[in-house]
This record gives sequence, structure tokens and C-alpha cells, in this order.
Amino acid sequence: MRQIRVTVWGENVHEQTNATVREIYPSGMHQCIADALNAAGGITASTATLDQPHHGLPPGRLDDTDVLIWWGHAAHGKVRDDIVEQVTDAVWSGMGAIFLHSAHFSKPFKRLMGTPCNLTWREAGERERLWLTSRNHPIAAGLPDHFELENEEMYGEPFGIPEPQDTVFISWFQGGEVFRSGATWKRGAGNVFYFRPGHETYPTYHDANVQRVIANAVRWAHNPAARISRPSDAPNVPVESALEPITERGPKLHAAGEEGYR
Amino acid sequence: MRQIRVTVWGENVHEQTNATVREIYPSGMHQCIADALNAAGGITASTATLDQPHHGLPPGRLDDTDVLIWWGHAAHGKVRDDIVEQVTDAVWSGMGAIFLHSAHFSKPFKRLMGTPCNLTWREAGERERLWLTSRNHPIAAGLPDHFELENEEMYGEPFGIPEPQDTVFISWFQGGEVFRSGATWKRGAGNVFYFRPGHETYPTYHDANVQRVIANAVRWAHNPAARISRPSDAPNVPVESALEPITERGPKLHAAGEEGYR
Amino acid sequence: MRQIRVTVWGENVHEQTNATVREIYPSGMHQCIADALNAAGGITASTATLDQPHHGLPPGRLDDTDVLIWWGHAAHGKVRDDIVEQVTDAVWSGMGAIFLHSAHFSKPFKRLMGTPCNLTWREAGERERLWLTSRNHPIAAGLPDHFELENEEMYGEPFGIPEPQDTVFISWFQGGEVFRSGATWKRGAGNVFYFRPGHETYPTYHDANVQRVIANAVRWAHNPAARISRPSDAPNVPVESALEPITERGPKLHAAGEEGYR
Amino acid sequence: MRQIRVTVWGENVHEQTNATVREIYPSGMHQCIADALNAAGGITASTATLDQPHHGLPPGRLDDTDVLIWWGHAAHGKVRDDIVEQVTDAVWSGMGAIFLHSAHFSKPFKRLMGTPCNLTWREAGERERLWLTSRNHPIAAGLPDHFELENEEMYGEPFGIPEPQDTVFISWFQGGEVFRSGATWKRGAGNVFYFRPGHETYPTYHDANVQRVIANAVRWAHNPAARISRPSDAPNVPVESALEPITERGPKLHAAGEEGYR
Repeated sequence: MRQIRVTVWGENVHEQTNATVREIYPSGMHQCIADALNAAGGITASTATLDQPHHGLPPGRLDDTDVLIWWGHAAHGKVRDDIVEQVTDAVWSGMGAIFLHSAHFSKPFKRLMGTPCNLTWREAGERERLWLTSRNHPIAAGLPDHFELENEEMYGEPFGIPEPQDTVFISWFQGGEVFRSGATWKRGAGNVFYFRPGHETYPTYHDANVQRVIANAVRWAHNPAARISRPSDAPNVPVESALEPITERGPKLHAAGEEGYR
Repeated sequence: MRQIRVTVWGENVHEQTNATVREIYPSGMHQCIADALNAAGGITASTATLDQPHHGLPPGRLDDTDVLIWWGHAAHGKVRDDIVEQVTDAVWSGMGAIFLHSAHFSKPFKRLMGTPCNLTWREAGERERLWLTSRNHPIAAGLPDHFELENEEMYGEPFGIPEPQDTVFISWFQGGEVFRSGATWKRGAGNVFYFRPGHETYPTYHDANVQRVIANAVRWAHNPAARISRPSDAPNVPVESALEPITERGPKLHAAGEEGYR
Repeated sequence: MRQIRVTVWGENVHEQTNATVREIYPSGMHQCIADALNAAGGITASTATLDQPHHGLPPGRLDDTDVLIWWGHAAHGKVRDDIVEQVTDAVWSGMGAIFLHSAHFSKPFKRLMGTPCNLTWREAGERERLWLTSRNHPIAAGLPDHFELENEEMYGEPFGIPEPQDTVFISWFQGGEVFRSGATWKRGAGNVFYFRPGHETYPTYHDANVQRVIANAVRWAHNPAARISRPSDAPNVPVESALEPITERGPKLHAAGEEGYR
Repeated sequence: MRQIRVTVWGENVHEQTNATVREIYPSGMHQCIADALNAAGGITASTATLDQPHHGLPPGRLDDTDVLIWWGHAAHGKVRDDIVEQVTDAVWSGMGAIFLHSAHFSKPFKRLMGTPCNLTWREAGERERLWLTSRNHPIAAGLPDHFELENEEMYGEPFGIPEPQDTVFISWFQGGEVFRSGATWKRGAGNVFYFRPGHETYPTYHDANVQRVIANAVRWAHNPAARISRPSDAPNVPVESALEPITERGPKLHAAGEEGYR
């Protein structure tokens, strides 16, 4: 089987500006995640960052990406709208997408969800415990029924997402909150997964369980089917090519061969 | 119980430019729909159109709208983005929304779904038969298990929507296609319904069954709870007000009282 | 509008055999719940118990019940299978059903879910905090974003249920677990809600928030449509009455007018 | 990768008693399906039938089955309840299950769905056209957006199933009906797929598209994770082993180490 090609997109801001973050992730969070994926087996991961031309996603890059991973936080507003549109188009055409932590407020995640994607939060380094809610789900392969992160940012419900197709993890927080930490949706032909952990001041992406969830999610999100070209097309079916013989009746708005309105 | 306040939004283009449409809907499709709702009991419906200032949705109008109905076709691209944002915000805050027919490609519907919302189509005046797929669903109250429209435009699968929370109707078309014609979702605090029939060159909105579906959908979509103000807020919960006593640990990114990134 | 008719079914075992339970619920848990509903407005609630003839559900009783509430624990195995079948049939025909706490393991709930409905548990009188996960959901009307029960039994994930249509509440427990405490499904024509709190040694059903959730759930689950008679029927549509004219072709198994296999 | 082990269960009644069926499926429908799967690649399929001891599913057989396929029609009532329970237990523990055509009324399918699973039907050899509704879904791999079966039994909506997690196919029938022909659910740890075509008097299981759907569904339903033993267990978590330190408070019903009620 050929390798799954992953692009890990990171905004790469706090790694440059914050000493704590730089110390934990000297090559960037995106590189830490890509390294773990490259070690997981069956996956070839590379990175892309905000500061690169086209935010690291030049024409053709998404076509060659089976699964895109997205981490952003301080610079959501700097992501160009045309790039966001390329990402959502690629998802609709069949690319898998995994949104991590603060990417809940990234432009592409909000566009794919159609909801506010908001939550409550607290940065206090408290304990988080993730509970599995969908037994034997491929995204939880090899994981126990629960695992802990000793220091994490809290995200609390209500989380402004659409009801998931699968709720895979729910988190318990020391300070008293809960959160749907792992959830799946399908958007067009693309599989989408949101995974909560990963505040940049903690070594979360060095955690073995977190790395395993992300590698599992890549395998789950990857769809080997050929990508759909022009996934938003709305083709006209002329009356002559109707699958059952019919005769045109009544008044018409569109001339023969005309495109539909958009 | 107080009346449900409905705003029927119509782009009102073909009613002005196409003789067939004007003849069927001399006061506009929006007015025909509003008239039917005003006769249904418990509902007060008014209209708004694209050509009015703020597309008929000036500040405050959506606050006073319990359920918004949207019909658009030729002029999707002319709807201002700031108005679209006001509509999605209102839905997230709890306003119900019903999208009719070609509004599958309207900006607010696409934004709320997060998917391409595309389909195949044919304008041949063929027979459509809608089958109920969720027995006793409130949107189907008083309707038989199926009903017909003798002349309609065909919309065919695959329909580029997220898996619905309830699939209420599926259509059979004479030319050989099928379509999920009635489907529900929740977006933020708002209930959303899509209903397929309603091509402008046919008298669909004069049909008693269609009128009944729309009135039922208004009652289903209406949520009497107080609207949520600022439905996208992501409030910080300071460590001092944590529900369980915790002590701050580890490095921090945010100063006390700072807003989160967006 | 006519009153919603509720039957609160309680197994009424520990109220008879355990002094603590009897002290908290001198007239039984079922009566406490019914009293709260009768005070809520628009609802007429009565009770039924295991020890009565037909477990208090003689022929006709379920026909006159808009919403059935079920609490059982020690005596799940003593519930007669024919009564279970009458309950599931009534749900399929349009009766609402609310299952409380340990009713997760009741026969009718397991039959309606099709899953093991299992969980982890601990009886330690610990704190439970319920978080709202679906803003403005009718079942949460008038409730804050979270509320607490100072002493409750713990139920923990993984909870063996099908993915809900709406996840309404998720619980945080003091001992470190989380649980999907409020969830909805549709089964046949009937609306089903599961609500977690209610261990019999604590005064949970005297709690105002809990009472409000149950009253809200009754209103949500109630479907005013006429009950479907024989909700499992699979009618044959003879070729002569096909909605589109077709001619019979090929070999047949069934003689004209014959019933299908079951 | 090791082969996926499939057991194709067939009731094998009409193959013995009806000349038409015997002619189309001289070795039985189950064998025809197993042969196609054995030719599909990566799958090892064997068969089991009603008339064999334990209906062909003796102790251990389901443990060694990754995906069970079930076809039944005339003899649903003859399937032993203890075997049904073994099947649902195996699904809950992680075995995949595919139910074909008239198995909508089989005992294990009804038990897993929790709904009536009823429909309307007509045996007239009419044309069925299956439309894909979830683009790039693994169960539709390599299939066009629609395909036809020239002679099939009609099944019509409303189909008494729970709202699916994925609706994969919807059928159009010549006589005017529609039907959700391919749908998925998760039950416990097991993936479940229902696929409509396959009336025994037509050569449906010889059709290349139908065979491809079934092989795809096997790959989709198969979960390589270790099977969960005792999937209905509800373990007690003693207060001493709580993940967060808590102190027992309040009255108790259960003695230490006691099993919960069922």
C-alpha cells in the first residue's frame, strides 16, 4: 500500500516569539507532529507554515496531500481567504482534514462546520483526562479507555459544533469542565476530525497517546478514492439524456445547454 | 401563546423579469408564501427582498424574526456578505431558518452547511413525488405518506449536504432521479430546514401540501427561548472562578483578563 | 391546548425495602416525579408500578399515555417480556419515552437502543456537574449552562449507546469521569430521551433543575400527531395500484394478496 | 495484511423449495455471495445455513468471523433466540455485520436497530436504480454515481429504521417509490450496514455492482481491533481506585465489591 501523504500546517508564530514555546518545540509544533507521523508507519508527513509563500500551500500542494493537519491560534485572521477556499475545496474533493486545539477558531474549520465553534477556556496548566466514548473506533486503536495530560489548557462546553457523526473522546478537566475532545464529520467527500489537546506552552505533542491519536486519525481520514475534480459542480441533465424517457412540459427559465445560477 | 414572527425573504428577480413567473406569482413568490403562512394560524409573516435597503433586513429586523425563510436563485452573488453574516449570526443565536429550493446555493445556506450543497438538475416540468421518511415528524403533521407535484424542476443526488439530523422527505422524479427533499440540522442554537420544491415557473407555492410543510416547518424551527446574544463568544474562565478549586501551574501565554485569539 | 398525559413507571422496590430510600421518597420516586410534573403546567401525570397487575400498564393504558417515564434498577429482570413489547410498540407508534438513571439497563431501553447500554459506576455520593452541550435545546429551556448535584452515583464512559441525535448534557464527576447524561433518539414515530441523574439514596428528584429537565423533556417528547396503529406493518402495494403504471415482469414468489414473511 | 474472514449466513429455504430460485442460485444465494467475496481480494468467505446445527454458528464460529453477512426471508421466526443473542453480542464486541434485502425483518437486525424496520413492498420485477448519496464513501469505492437492476422487488419508504450515520444509497423504483437502500450504523463496537437489493427470484447477487458493494462493505465493516470480551459489562469502580481522590459520602445501596443490578 502506498504511503499516506500528510501536510502538517502550523502558523509558526509563538515558536518564534515565545521562549517557552520555542524551548518545547525548537523546530516548531508542526515539525514535532510531522516527525511523530513519519515514525508511525505508512505515513509520509511534511510541513507548511503561514509565513511561507501561499502560506506553504502553493498550487498543487493540496492535490498531493491525502490528509491536511491544521494548527493555528494567534494568526487566524492573517490566513488569506483564497487559501481557506482552496482548503475547503480540497476537503470537499476528498482530502482528509484534522484540526487541532485552537484551530477550532481557524477559518477553514469554521467554514466546514457552519457553526460558531466557540467554547470557554482557562490557561492554568490543569489536568485533562480524555475518555473514549466510541469503543473500538479506529481513531482510538491501541489506546486505553482513558488517558491523561497533566498540564493542559481547559476548553469547556458548550462547544459550538454541529452534532458529530462520531463522538470519539470527551475530556474531564480538573477545574470542573467537560469537553467533546474528539469528534468526526463528513464534508463533501472529505473526512474531518477535530482533536482538542495541544496548547503551545505544554509538551502535548510529545505525548505518546496524543501522537497515536493523530496517526490513527490520519489513517481514518485518508480516503484512497480518486479525488473529485470540481466538487461543487451542479451539472444539468438534459431532458434527452434522462434515464427514464420523459417529455418536456410547461414553461422554462433556462435555454438548452445553459449553466445554472450560482 | 404569542404568534410566531416569520420573515419571508425573496430575491424577487424573475417575478420582475419573466412573464410566466409574474403571472403565477403576481405579488411575488415571497408574498404568496407569506399569505399562506398568515392563513395557517399562529403565524405572522412579512416579507423582505433583495432590492430593498439592506436587502430588506435592516438592523433589528432579524432580532424580531423568529423564523427566516429564504428563496433565491438568479442573484445569489448579489447578496452582500455582511448581510449573510448577520443571517448566520442570527441562526446561531437561535433564529430558525428555512431554505427553499434553489436556496441550496444561497450564501447563507452554504455557510451554515459547510459543504458544496450541489446537485444535478433538469428543467422539464416532470412529476415529483415526495415520500415521508420520518413518520410523525412535526414537519409532516397532517400530511399523507406521499404527495405529488405534477410539474417540477428535477434535483438529483448526490446532494452535497452534511448527513441530516432528520431526513424527513425523499423525492422520486419521473426522469429517474431521487433527492433528499426535506432535511433538518441544528446550527448553533438555531434549527435549520431545507425543503426542495419551488421552481419559479410552476405554481408550487400555491399547493396545499407544500404550504402545509412550510407552516409545519415554521412551528418546528421556532424556538421560544430567549435569543443568545453574541453567540460566538468564547469567554475566559479565570482560575479564581473555577468551579473546582485549582492552582495555576506551568507557563502561560495570556496575561490575566486578556481576550483569546480569534 | 390539552394537557400532556404522562405515566411515570417506577419499579417501587427500594422504596419498600430500604429505609433511606423510603425516607427520601415516602410515596415512592415515581410519585415524587409525578407530583413535580403535575405542578409544572400543561402536564397531567399519574403513576404505575411493577407490583400492580400488568405492572400497572393494563391494555389501553399506553394508548392514553403521551409520554412514558421509566425508572427501574433492582428488578429489571422481573419485567414481563410482553409488557416490554407493548412499550416498544407504543413508542414506535408515537408515544414519547423518557428513561431515567438506572433504566439504562431496563429491558425497554435496551430494546429501543439496540446496544449494550453499559457503563462504569461508583456509589460514593460524589459531586456531579451537568453541562449543557446543545444551546437553546428545548430540553434545557430555562436552565443555566451548568448545574450541580452535590451527591450522586457516578456513571462513566464509555456508555454503550448509539450516537445520539442530540447530545444535550454531559456530566463531570468529582472522581474523574465524564458521561453523556442527556441524549435523544427517534425510534419509529416516537421520541426517546435518556437522563442520567436519580440514584435512589439521594434526593435527586426533589432538585428543581432536575425537575425542570424532566418537565421540558416531557414537552419535547410529546408528539400531538395521532398515534400510528400497527406501527410494524409492512403493506404490500399490488402492481395494479402502483403510483406509476408498470407491468409485472419475471418470476414471483408471492401469490396475489399474500402477506409478506416476518 | 491478513485476510478478512467473512461468514455468509443464508436461510437456504427457497433454494430448496422453489425451482426459479434454485436455477438462479444452484449452490444457494449464500454460496453465490461467498464466491464473489472470495474472488474480490483480501477476503476469505465461508457459509452457514439455518438447517445446520446451531444454524451453522456453533460456539467459536462468530469469534473467528470478522464480518457476518445475513440473508433471511421465509424463516425469520425459526431462528433461535439464543443464536440471535450471540450475533448481537458479537456485533457489540466488534464484529461487522451486513444485512441484505429481506433481512430487514430478521431478528438480529431488528434487535440491533431498536425500530420496527418495516417498509412497503411489491414483487413485480420492476427497474431499480440506486443513487449514491455520500460521495467517495468507502462502500461506494469504484462505483458510478448510479447503477441499475432491471428486475427487482420494490421496497418503499417510510422505512422504519433509526436515522443512519451515513446514508450511502437511495433507490428509485419504476413504480414510483424511493428507499434508503444503503445505510450505516455503529452498535457497540461493531459496524453495521444494510443493503437493499437481493430478492431471491432475480439474479441480483450475480450483478457486478452489487458484488462490489458487498465486498466494499465487508472492508468498511471490518475492524482489525481486538474483539471486546464481555461487551455488556458494567464494571464498578471502587472509591479507593477513583482517578481523583474522593471520600465516600452519604448513604449506600451496594455493599463493597457487589455487582450492579441488571
